[in-house]
Amino acid sequence: MKVNIGKKILIANEEWAFKNSRLFAEQKNLCLNMISSPGSGKTTILVRTITELKDKIKIGVIEGDIQTNIDAEKIGATEAPVVQINTNGACHLLAAQVNGALENLPVGDLGLIFIENVGNLVCPSAFQLGEAGKIVVLSVAEGDDKPAKYPAIFAKSKAMLINKTDLLDAVGQVDFNIERAKADAYKLNKDIKIFPISAKTGEGMANWYDWLVESVKNL
Amino acid sequence: MKVNIGKKILIANEEWAFKNSRLFAEQKNLCLNMISSPGSGKTTILVRTITELKDKIKIGVIEGDIQTNIDAEKIGATEAPVVQINTNGACHLLAAQVNGALENLPVGDLGLIFIENVGNLVCPSAFQLGEAGKIVVLSVAEGDDKPAKYPAIFAKSKAMLINKTDLLDAVGQVDFNIERAKADAYKLNKDIKIFPISAKTGEGMANWYDWLVESVKNL
Repeated sequence: MKVNIGKKILIANEEWAFKNSRLFAEQKNLCLNMISSPGSGKTTILVRTITELKDKIKIGVIEGDIQTNIDAEKIGATEAPVVQINTNGACHLLAAQVNGALENLPVGDLGLIFIENVGNLVCPSAFQLGEAGKIVVLSVAEGDDKPAKYPAIFAKSKAMLINKTDLLDAVGQVDFNIERAKADAYKLNKDIKIFPISAKTGEGMANWYDWLVESVKNL
Repeated sequence: MKVNIGKKILIANEEWAFKNSRLFAEQKNLCLNMISSPGSGKTTILVRTITELKDKIKIGVIEGDIQTNIDAEKIGATEAPVVQINTNGACHLLAAQVNGALENLPVGDLGLIFIENVGNLVCPSAFQLGEAGKIVVLSVAEGDDKPAKYPAIFAKSKAMLINKTDLLDAVGQVDFNIERAKADAYKLNKDIKIFPISAKTGEGMANWYDWLVESVKNL
């Protein structure tokens, strides 16, 4: 007998993901699953987005981390509702964990729920959580070759945030060709929305906010 | 019947890792397994290290990537022997893949073999490849909270390279407290060697080279 445990885990995960997506539909929540390498700036993007959109969209956050609640504390400082999941070593979130976290979020009050996945550009892309879309974040410090080298998540994402563009301003500080990264991402996914931003300075964030507001409206 | 496939995969991997480590012992190769997030600068570190140590140590490289041979081409430009492994989606290298790559490296001529693992701060730390030690690379652009948030690889590494210190020079450009990152790493691993470096400018690289030369000598 050959038991393909990997496939079994994925099927069970898809069932939980389906339950979550049904809940989001009932409650009229737009759920976005943010995926990136560690340190690309997901939490900083969320803190700024929550703060600057607070009069337009009520946002809640599910924080996925291997250890610590450092990120949940940063989100909590904005007064947005947040639930921390610690995976204790696992490299991605599972839909069942998200389902548990949703019990502790005021889903009926929220227009938008961000899931900040574990920092990992590879594994989280294979696990549906019930989200309406994935958002991939790439910091310019990571290099413009990442869409070509880690294609799965770029192929599957609704939007791509190219973060830390402030590091490009100091000439020669970071070598990153935005046009190359865009071209490689479009090759994988012709419909992907691409937003170059600096969550630190605020540059480019308005386009991202417009897209979020529009996406919530069109739900 | 409960089949724990995860454990089975690890056991088979450890057998291959043992074969590799025996080969390294016979051939007197120091093998180091480099692990980091995507874009922390592993390839740039290797290119500079190979070039600047070329009169002291003969270095070979095994490149692990999900897709592309971008990194192997950069290493190949130094004229060091290099073998590319594409994992086609998998998030880490396996010892059996390394064993296959070793057949295409002139192991008898090499003092030092670097394995550049797939860019992922989580999964590769769980898979022994037969190496004498792991090297974790953290770029200052990723933030100083990463040892606390991704503890496993910092607990298991012989050395930690804190790369892109040139980004700290432009005041306010990147917020990274080297002392905090060091303290968190030492909490997990009191014996870890820590080298703040810039593979771009060369700052701090001499200490890393001294440690490599000493480690090869003490093999």
